Amino acid sequence: MTTVVQKFGGTSVGDVTKIKRVAEKIKRKMDEGKKVVTVVSAMGKSTDKLVELANDITDNPDPREMDMLLTTGEQVTISLVVMALKEIGVDAVSLTGWQAGIKTEDVHQDARITDIDPVNVQEHLDEGKAVLVAGFQGVSENGDITTLGRGGSDTTAVALAAALKAQSCSIFTDVTGVFTADPRYVKKARKLDSISYDEMLELANLGAGVLHPRAVEFAKNHQVTLIVRSSMEEVKGTTVEEEATMEQNLIVRGLAFEDKLTKITIERLPNQYDTMSTLFSLLANQGINVDVIIQQVTSDHGLNVSCTINTSDLGKAIDALHDNKPTLCYSTIRHESSLAKVSIVGSGMVSNPGVAADMFKVLGKEEIEVKMVSTSEIAVSTVVPDGDMVRAAEALHAFFGLDDNEKEKINKVKEAAL
Amino acid sequence: MTTVVQKFGGTSVGDVTKIKRVAEKIKRKMDEGKKVVTVVSAMGKSTDKLVELANDITDNPDPREMDMLLTTGEQVTISLVVMALKEIGVDAVSLTGWQAGIKTEDVHQDARITDIDPVNVQEHLDEGKAVLVAGFQGVSENGDITTLGRGGSDTTAVALAAALKAQSCSIFTDVTGVFTADPRYVKKARKLDSISYDEMLELANLGAGVLHPRAVEFAKNHQVTLIVRSSMEEVKGTTVEEEATMEQNLIVRGLAFEDKLTKITIERLPNQYDTMSTLFSLLANQGINVDVIIQQVTSDHGLNVSCTINTSDLGKAIDALHDNKPTLCYSTIRHESSLAKVSIVGSGMVSNPGVAADMFKVLGKEEIEVKMVSTSEIAVSTVVPDGDMVRAAEALHAFFGLDDNEKEKINKVKEAAL
Repeated sequence: MTTVVQKFGGTSVGDVTKIKRVAEKIKRKMDEGKKVVTVVSAMGKSTDKLVELANDITDNPDPREMDMLLTTGEQVTISLVVMALKEIGVDAVSLTGWQAGIKTEDVHQDARITDIDPVNVQEHLDEGKAVLVAGFQGVSENGDITTLGRGGSDTTAVALAAALKAQSCSIFTDVTGVFTADPRYVKKARKLDSISYDEMLELANLGAGVLHPRAVEFAKNHQVTLIVRSSMEEVKGTTVEEEATMEQNLIVRGLAFEDKLTKITIERLPNQYDTMSTLFSLLANQGINVDVIIQQVTSDHGLNVSCTINTSDLGKAIDALHDNKPTLCYSTIRHESSLAKVSIVGSGMVSNPGVAADMFKVLGKEEIEVKMVSTSEIAVSTVVPDGDMVRAAEALHAFFGLDDNEKEKINKVKEAAL
Repeated sequence: MTTVVQKFGGTSVGDVTKIKRVAEKIKRKMDEGKKVVTVVSAMGKSTDKLVELANDITDNPDPREMDMLLTTGEQVTISLVVMALKEIGVDAVSLTGWQAGIKTEDVHQDARITDIDPVNVQEHLDEGKAVLVAGFQGVSENGDITTLGRGGSDTTAVALAAALKAQSCSIFTDVTGVFTADPRYVKKARKLDSISYDEMLELANLGAGVLHPRAVEFAKNHQVTLIVRSSMEEVKGTTVEEEATMEQNLIVRGLAFEDKLTKITIERLPNQYDTMSTLFSLLANQGINVDVIIQQVTSDHGLNVSCTINTSDLGKAIDALHDNKPTLCYSTIRHESSLAKVSIVGSGMVSNPGVAADMFKVLGKEEIEVKMVSTSEIAVSTVVPDGDMVRAAEALHAFFGLDDNEKEKINKVKEAAL
């Protein structure tokens, strides 16, 4: 008898009607003869309400106590889903993170899973019960309740699937799968039947919000087959697995993009071994997420360093840099806002050195200015004016053959671009 | 350094403002140099909201899952109180039932505490922290979350006080202490400075809702000094301890009363050894609480049995009796509603055989019909028409010298009554 793990996010369990629908889905899966473990998030806006309560008390809530507070959200959902299952005649049991044996680091609000002891879950499965596990939460070695940070329920599901050697881990969400680009922006975006872990990881890291990167990484490391699918529609989703078997011929598998970025340039830093580490440690300590980084040696052997940050962090970044001017010894700071990042992702790139060049040609043809570039094994990212983001994405989507069922068009577009 | 335990109920932590007030109270107690453990209930109406969610899903929620659901309420409160404490500079930590080592039977919704392992609580106290413990909840031997049933947070507080050998256990509530009678009905009711465990137990069992009987029993068994006091006003409360040191001269320490009772009489049952057990097991299995019981042998050696039940249970009781008529072999059922129970309580009664007689005289003088009587070592209860309840209580309150500062009147009332 095979075991499957499935995860339903907050919108999928947003109210009592939806909770009953999830129970029906679990029943159907069990009727197929599967052992079913289901991970759920907190109901819809319930986490926001709890955060609001905390904010009414303090501007600076204690992380341990935030975990204590927020983990109640998932605990409510698991109990309600089990009640709904029992109501339709399915024996079921709910387990909090600690009851499900989910051990984490002793870190609050963003703990990593260190180990899973699935004995309790397995026993209940062997007794024929549907097992509901509270997502996003675990317990540290000293018995404190911890949370896994953003996307934590995905990670809970993947980790349980690995520990239980499950056949697959289905992530039910409000989209029907992983798309070649965000369909809200790129009209011709297409759902992928399959994608590799690495490609998914790049897309996830680049801001395609379907799956959390940590969950994808965990799935890759433990070879868990992930399936991203809709909780509302009964349609085939996207399978994330070691080798994407379909569409192997495509060099670029998908696009990711995000706006509201600012490029910040720190000029004439001393050209020393520790300059970069001092600078970026400083920003990291302020909780500022730094993305694309460019380093340039000036004619008089100083260093110019540029990086992108979220525009919302700009004030904080400038304050931190000003406060540390004596240590950093730079001359000036410049910044440019209203920027966006557009990235192409595909494992086929490794063996296709011309992909970056193709990308620049497409953007050049569209007269879109490329402000910064960064590359990885399977992705190329460009920073462009944010007003050009969607146009850039659409042009790249068409050029790299990702448009919806319009293969014959592709060559024409290519010809025109080059 | 002495340890004190205090408990705040749902209304005392009903909103953010009240939670901050509780934090201030804890701080003041710590500033006195005490180690402070605080047990809190769920915020105001939050439990009702959770129950409503469950009822939207099923008419018959699973008890284990109800415990899973409802225990989130106290978990929310403990985290918020700790945040409020940290905001005013007090180091603090929150602990759920299982984290505080509160072990219970493997029963849901009404578990009894079997053991407390206070190591975790003690460690945090020794580190100088305020410790917040979620009331009403514990963990069974097999790791399930359980709840202690009604009044459970009182029991949590008392049990922790016993395990920690605390100096006292203060129960903060919305009244200023234990009264000689419910002051909402008896205008001359007076707050008691002290009362014995047994007297408190009788009052609690007789429906004076300040403290849950199980908590009082636990306090008596472990000799925990209980203090019932107001969470709103800074006034002296009522101390519950082994020997009530004050007011020893009073034979009757307090009155309790409740209305909405029905007397039900089952006529001509067979006079056999197992008749009573069969009858009352049947009612108990339906969840019907039976109070005053009278058994009478008829002239032809049959049995007439009368008892009081809550009027809300009448339909259920009659159905159960009808369904089991072949087994019970009675002839008819009669019932009389609109009744009330009025009880006098005092440990001095044991050595004063005339107290019951005095009670009947007072009620006779008031022309109040006594329908049923039951007695214990330290209480006498009478069932009267509910329209006469308050009048009976006031007359008894005056006669037994409980009226507020009117000692000179007492003798006159006594003379008039006898």
